Amino acid sequence: MQPWKTLSRRTVLNYGRFLTVEEHTVELPDGRTIPRWPWIITPDYINVAAVTAAGAFLCFRQTKYAVKGTSLAPVGGHIEPGEAPLDAAQRELLEETGYEATLWTPLGQYAVNGNRGAGVAHLFLARGARRVTEPSGGDLEEQELLALSRSEVEAALDSGEFKVLAWATVMALALRHLEDQ
Amino acid sequence: MQPWKTLSRRTVLNYGRFLTVEEHTVELPDGRTIPRWPWIITPDYINVAAVTAAGAFLCFRQTKYAVKGTSLAPVGGHIEPGEAPLDAAQRELLEETGYEATLWTPLGQYAVNGNRGAGVAHLFLARGARRVTEPSGGDLEEQELLALSRSEVEAALDSGEFKVLAWATVMALALRHLEDQ
Repeated sequence: MQPWKTLSRRTVLNYGRFLTVEEHTVELPDGRTIPRWPWIITPDYINVAAVTAAGAFLCFRQTKYAVKGTSLAPVGGHIEPGEAPLDAAQRELLEETGYEATLWTPLGQYAVNGNRGAGVAHLFLARGARRVTEPSGGDLEEQELLALSRSEVEAALDSGEFKVLAWATVMALALRHLEDQ
Repeated sequence: MQPWKTLSRRTVLNYGRFLTVEEHTVELPDGRTIPRWPWIITPDYINVAAVTAAGAFLCFRQTKYAVKGTSLAPVGGHIEPGEAPLDAAQRELLEETGYEATLWTPLGQYAVNGNRGAGVAHLFLARGARRVTEPSGGDLEEQELLALSRSEVEAALDSGEFKVLAWATVMALALRHLEDQ
């Protein structure tokens, strides 16, 4: 199987680092070309399933512009330009919760949109989390920090209460990993 | 917790049904307004973890423009305008594999991007799948249909071989659901 080739690209919308849209001319393996393939550039991001030394899952109850009502959420945020995904994950855990974790496990990296890009989600499990400072906040959304038991997380995941795709993914993959221990 | 309010919206990029970008003026609960909040409109889609009566998982090995190399993939596709998510899931299963399934379980619906929209992913588990016709294909990507064992799916998921976010999500949630049986 051969990949598609990008023959040319041009920017058609530029909102800076949070959203740029390009139009690509793409060549398929059979020689056909697609002249106007939209390609979305948004920041790569991390999400972290963070578990304390006592086994509590650090989550938020929060609002989100694309979600009706409130949602449960893991730690997460954009990767800054030049920042390594793990560094971003550790920074966001500290900023959002005031916790540091001792054991970090990558749970994979995933294209957000297989056709149009829209960034890469880097997912992590962080264990042995302990509080070292106050959260520094700074996000625009209102959010409340919760410490959930594993069974509470499982029930919430299975009833769709993690309402953003990457949030459900990181929690499901973290639970799989913890089962293997 | 109060939701953000959309005060106004205007279209700033229009590629038809596959991509439209709007700019919203958003009011936060504390009264602040954000004047130029980009909002991405892409089609809602479905993914299906399909399991045959014999317990094999129907997956594809395929290329995808946003993914390096090949990826394992579940059944999936856009929801057509006016189509119910379950109808889309059943249509895509039949078109892509030639299979029909007897037992359908919703695994939730998830905003693809919590800040900017980018559609909603509707995920399903389909059991009792049996072949009733030839796949009708029609996708632009090359793909090869595979019947994987549960342990093969678990190993592939845990090593990141489902390389698109929703694909990892639907497989992880399906495996959770099957464990509860």
